[in-house]
Amino acid sequence: MDLFLTLDAGGTSTRAVVHDAAGTCLGHATGSGGNPTASGVAAASATMRSTTAEALERAGARPTQVGHALAAMAGSTVRLAGVDDGLRDLGLPVPLRLGSDLEAMFFSGTAALDGAALVSGTGAAAIVVTGGATTARSDGRGWLLGDVGSGYWIARRVVRAVTADLDHRGPRTALTEALLSSVGVTGDRAGDKDALLDRLVSLLYAIPTPGIARFAPLVFEVADTDPVAGEIVDAAAEGLADTVRALWSADPSAPLVIGGSVLFHQAGLRAAVTGLLRRSDWTGPVSAVSDGTVGAMSMNLRGAGVEVDESAHARIAASLREIRAHC
Amino acid sequence: MDLFLTLDAGGTSTRAVVHDAAGTCLGHATGSGGNPTASGVAAASATMRSTTAEALERAGARPTQVGHALAAMAGSTVRLAGVDDGLRDLGLPVPLRLGSDLEAMFFSGTAALDGAALVSGTGAAAIVVTGGATTARSDGRGWLLGDVGSGYWIARRVVRAVTADLDHRGPRTALTEALLSSVGVTGDRAGDKDALLDRLVSLLYAIPTPGIARFAPLVFEVADTDPVAGEIVDAAAEGLADTVRALWSADPSAPLVIGGSVLFHQAGLRAAVTGLLRRSDWTGPVSAVSDGTVGAMSMNLRGAGVEVDESAHARIAASLREIRAHC
Repeated sequence: MDLFLTLDAGGTSTRAVVHDAAGTCLGHATGSGGNPTASGVAAASATMRSTTAEALERAGARPTQVGHALAAMAGSTVRLAGVDDGLRDLGLPVPLRLGSDLEAMFFSGTAALDGAALVSGTGAAAIVVTGGATTARSDGRGWLLGDVGSGYWIARRVVRAVTADLDHRGPRTALTEALLSSVGVTGDRAGDKDALLDRLVSLLYAIPTPGIARFAPLVFEVADTDPVAGEIVDAAAEGLADTVRALWSADPSAPLVIGGSVLFHQAGLRAAVTGLLRRSDWTGPVSAVSDGTVGAMSMNLRGAGVEVDESAHARIAASLREIRAHC
Repeated sequence: MDLFLTLDAGGTSTRAVVHDAAGTCLGHATGSGGNPTASGVAAASATMRSTTAEALERAGARPTQVGHALAAMAGSTVRLAGVDDGLRDLGLPVPLRLGSDLEAMFFSGTAALDGAALVSGTGAAAIVVTGGATTARSDGRGWLLGDVGSGYWIARRVVRAVTADLDHRGPRTALTEALLSSVGVTGDRAGDKDALLDRLVSLLYAIPTPGIARFAPLVFEVADTDPVAGEIVDAAAEGLADTVRALWSADPSAPLVIGGSVLFHQAGLRAAVTGLLRRSDWTGPVSAVSDGTVGAMSMNLRGAGVEVDESAHARIAASLREIRAHC
């Protein structure tokens, strides 16, 4: 009963870590998407079970040894019935606590209990953390109503710019060749534009919302030389900076943690957002994180009364890096 | 075998007319959406059957008296199996011909065989008509990829502007009060913004795509005094003008017919689009039509070898107006 199980359940992948009270990682495993909102409760529960079973096995531990279990996930303010059925079936003797994926991202980047986090993955949102808890949020309103600067938001502009280009309604853009080759559509754009467009339209409408987010990286490949792509990246940076600026209660001298697949992998976008915030007098330290696992571990430890100061935070991050390097 | 049955099958309503070779309307009926792409083949087929049965009854005619049947509908280039099952069951002795809804809109506004049409309803598209047939098209690529200036396109900007306003990420706009009252959400926007936003978000995501198009009219109610709404209308006008400008093969001295629920009901938007096209040297006559029924009747008559010149076109339109006034 002295081990910690920490899950970082995202929309596209789930990470499970078995660790001790010092934050030393004993077992680690990754699985498919474990977010009940995106994948459904049954699938999320099954993924959490299988990923946990693998992490426990690698740690050489039994489920009954787990004394503290926490899963960070989106929408965790609403506890969905059945989300922890898989873990209970596995024989976990303690209840699963749920934590916010945005808080996990924040605590992955800092040991501080006050500051802000900005996340852009498939969606996009920002929060203010005060005394270790979320006190304000901005955006995160989904593909239809918000998520400005997210992967879906960027990709939607990409596919619309390509459609307008092929349709002669918008400017020529290098995104067209990039998208057509990415989806495997070949054709003479000087020939029958409607035939080419009809094939592209059929392919893109067949992707369930918000799956087109997968095309967001294309924009960064050509943004330096293509004006249409450059404008999309600039608008994404402005939108993400606005999302942070809307957090009126945030202390601009406190840490800002930036994460999510889009912001973590696209250093240019991250630099642009940071530059805009610096000009808006955000003076606090800015750090980037790939995921929320270190933060979720910190939340799990703190929930059990373990203090996570700066040196403990650094040890947790180092231990996770090491065990991941050996996977 | 001397009567004509003409159907104008739209996404939200279907119109059936029984008329003679002179274009005199003998029976008219309206039903729910009859577009097989939007409503499903079975529902569309059933609606066409019931609307036709009603129009025949009002004309005092039997199905066996129909010698020529045509239905104008979106996506008519692909004939869906079963779309005419309902009419065959009714005892219609002739096959149903399908025609383009965009061509029907064009031929509703003019007796000419050359020109262009611009339509903005839930979606938006433009075509060039040469010698009585479509020779080029622009946009009409659907809610995700195009339909610039359509009801969905406008409404998406409305709901995003309202979300950004309530979230403190965007400017205050009169659209917020208009949308909240339209969906019946009341709440203190100075109070818990997240509670108010959560209610709005739940309501709007529950509407199947592209159903939010129903909120497009809100923008025109406040556009004269609200800058956010004004910008949306201006951008819609620019987008619709671009859709016409992309029709390089169109003759700018030929007739342009403008239609669809958004362009027909919003005279301000129609005037803005026309103004932009005049500045782009579009010199041809511009007319506005409410639907494609007159054009579909003209297509049906022409398909049977009946000439529809300007005076015949005027007679058809007058006869349809009269029978509709008596329904």
